[in-house]
Amino acid sequence: MKNHWKNASIPAIDKKVGRDAQTYIHSLTKPVGSLGRLEDLAVSLASMTKERFPTVFPPGVLIFAADHGIVSEGVSAYPQEVTGQMVRNFLNGGAAINVFSKQIGAKLNIVDIGIAAEINSQTLISRKVRYGTANFLLGDAMIREEAEQAIDAGYQTANEMINNGIKCLIPGEMGIGNTTASSAVVAAVSGEEVDTLVGTGTGIEKEKLQIKKDVIEKALALRKPNGDDPVDVLSKVGGLEIAGMAGAMLAASSRSIPILVDGFIASTAALIAKMICSASADYMILGHRSAEPGHMKVIKLLGKEPILDLGMRLGEGSGAAIAFPVLQSASLMINEMATFEAAQISAKKQEGETRLVYK
Amino acid sequence: MKNHWKNASIPAIDKKVGRDAQTYIHSLTKPVGSLGRLEDLAVSLASMTKERFPTVFPPGVLIFAADHGIVSEGVSAYPQEVTGQMVRNFLNGGAAINVFSKQIGAKLNIVDIGIAAEINSQTLISRKVRYGTANFLLGDAMIREEAEQAIDAGYQTANEMINNGIKCLIPGEMGIGNTTASSAVVAAVSGEEVDTLVGTGTGIEKEKLQIKKDVIEKALALRKPNGDDPVDVLSKVGGLEIAGMAGAMLAASSRSIPILVDGFIASTAALIAKMICSASADYMILGHRSAEPGHMKVIKLLGKEPILDLGMRLGEGSGAAIAFPVLQSASLMINEMATFEAAQISAKKQEGETRLVYK
Repeated sequence: MKNHWKNASIPAIDKKVGRDAQTYIHSLTKPVGSLGRLEDLAVSLASMTKERFPTVFPPGVLIFAADHGIVSEGVSAYPQEVTGQMVRNFLNGGAAINVFSKQIGAKLNIVDIGIAAEINSQTLISRKVRYGTANFLLGDAMIREEAEQAIDAGYQTANEMINNGIKCLIPGEMGIGNTTASSAVVAAVSGEEVDTLVGTGTGIEKEKLQIKKDVIEKALALRKPNGDDPVDVLSKVGGLEIAGMAGAMLAASSRSIPILVDGFIASTAALIAKMICSASADYMILGHRSAEPGHMKVIKLLGKEPILDLGMRLGEGSGAAIAFPVLQSASLMINEMATFEAAQISAKKQEGETRLVYK
Repeated sequence: MKNHWKNASIPAIDKKVGRDAQTYIHSLTKPVGSLGRLEDLAVSLASMTKERFPTVFPPGVLIFAADHGIVSEGVSAYPQEVTGQMVRNFLNGGAAINVFSKQIGAKLNIVDIGIAAEINSQTLISRKVRYGTANFLLGDAMIREEAEQAIDAGYQTANEMINNGIKCLIPGEMGIGNTTASSAVVAAVSGEEVDTLVGTGTGIEKEKLQIKKDVIEKALALRKPNGDDPVDVLSKVGGLEIAGMAGAMLAASSRSIPILVDGFIASTAALIAKMICSASADYMILGHRSAEPGHMKVIKLLGKEPILDLGMRLGEGSGAAIAFPVLQSASLMINEMATFEAAQISAKKQEGETRLVYK
């Protein structure tokens, strides 16, 4: 088995290009700073892409689907077979992420990285590492080599989309039980209390929420993941789609492609990618603030402010897809707006001076 | 002079259609409530349009441009001629609102409702009421009939866009000095302290900010606008573009067309429209929270939560245009997503029951 991701190198973002973009944005026909966060996003995109006029179109939505053995402990509102059924829904174009991908003009790829069923489809990318993880209350979710293989599958499938021309990566996921795995991963790497991280996921009742918390606490005590070793954490209490998304983010950052990160599960993968190579985080932009409570902690650990806060908690990459037009607005602003000089607009009057580009 | 808007009637929104939309959204292939605010927006759109499958595309951006005599008191960072220069920029396609209108596929119309200059252009809609308002520190901004005429110009131009097929109205504005007029209007109708409403607008320094506050306070004391009479307030301390936007919002609501409201100036116009006919507010959705401090107060008076909070303060309708894709996502969700039944997806297991549509 190859591990392409281990040989990857992630270039530093180019802050000089970002500063040049900032200076240029000040010459556009609008009061300085009046587009707020959009201006910061344009500067970030310039630094990431190393282009003063950065492009994010077309975006690529890359969904990793996998199952979780922990579901047999009763931690989810849905039975395990829903993972595969939702993947068929993706392939048929009926899910939220299909609708939003089409809206934003995204290329959409679905990867079977560990569904506990066979799905026959020519459009599904098969990178199945195993038929779902093991129940991590009873044993490790997977062996270390499987976690590495899943990272590699993510790394390679993202690289393929980048080779095919996507300019912004939106990693997404489907996996019944994956808020449980994500909560366990975040607890293991942050040392945070499980109680503060666990939410209702797809919508469980109070009793089940307590079961979910207890299961995670017991599993962490039994599996003893090493919080400083992201691959160890993934293999002991993680998930194949979390590993795949982390690998995809390593690929995008190694290619200077901005990453628009979705909610709790995707942000957990972002945290893993950051632990594997901290420079990867410089290519990440958080799409939205999820309603899942663990996301708050992950956002803090990533040290970034999400673009949207709309109480969404669906996953699939849907929140990031909905945030994408804002990123696109930032890119179009710097690419298409006229400068004061070109538009021959009078300067701001200030202390007797007349300047076209004003501070 | 005709006042078409005075004879308009605004139909009640249809809450029954909204409830039907809500029930239908619960049958879509996603956990109930997992798209958060998007689901509320879809329900609102259904109630407004009276369509269970509401459409917002194509949107129409309708910009009103006018000048303000109060600018001669030194309240703005820019000279008055920038209003006309920016309108030429709109006509040439170089401004922020051009870029964002194009991005969202909007029809874009620009109305000269009171620019203090002649602009010759075939694409500019001429509805000039007067060459800018008078300096309202020295006298009324305009006479009552002019304010009514400006409302009517907004009402008619919006109706024309609706006749031409737009499904969502985004009113915008350009007018050097219009944060001053808006602050005065909001202070007059809300009784709020001027000090808490006034911000830096396009970017004035501390000294000018104090001048701006003093000018507004003095003007309110001298003009004595009747805070219960929106047309009196507009004529004494308002602006022609504020009146125009209010008229446009009356037109959209009378035609059951959702209104996506921009920042401080547009929200001030929304407040005026609401005072003229309170039912109009049922058709308004706030696009974003502006960085201009007075906007907080207006948002509270409108009793609505903005979609975006990105620190923008440009005007032109730009913040609403950037919020539009979120509204479109809400509409596409209900129009295009598959139901659980259609996708043959297993129900949530709950208390031994198996239901395809679950609560």
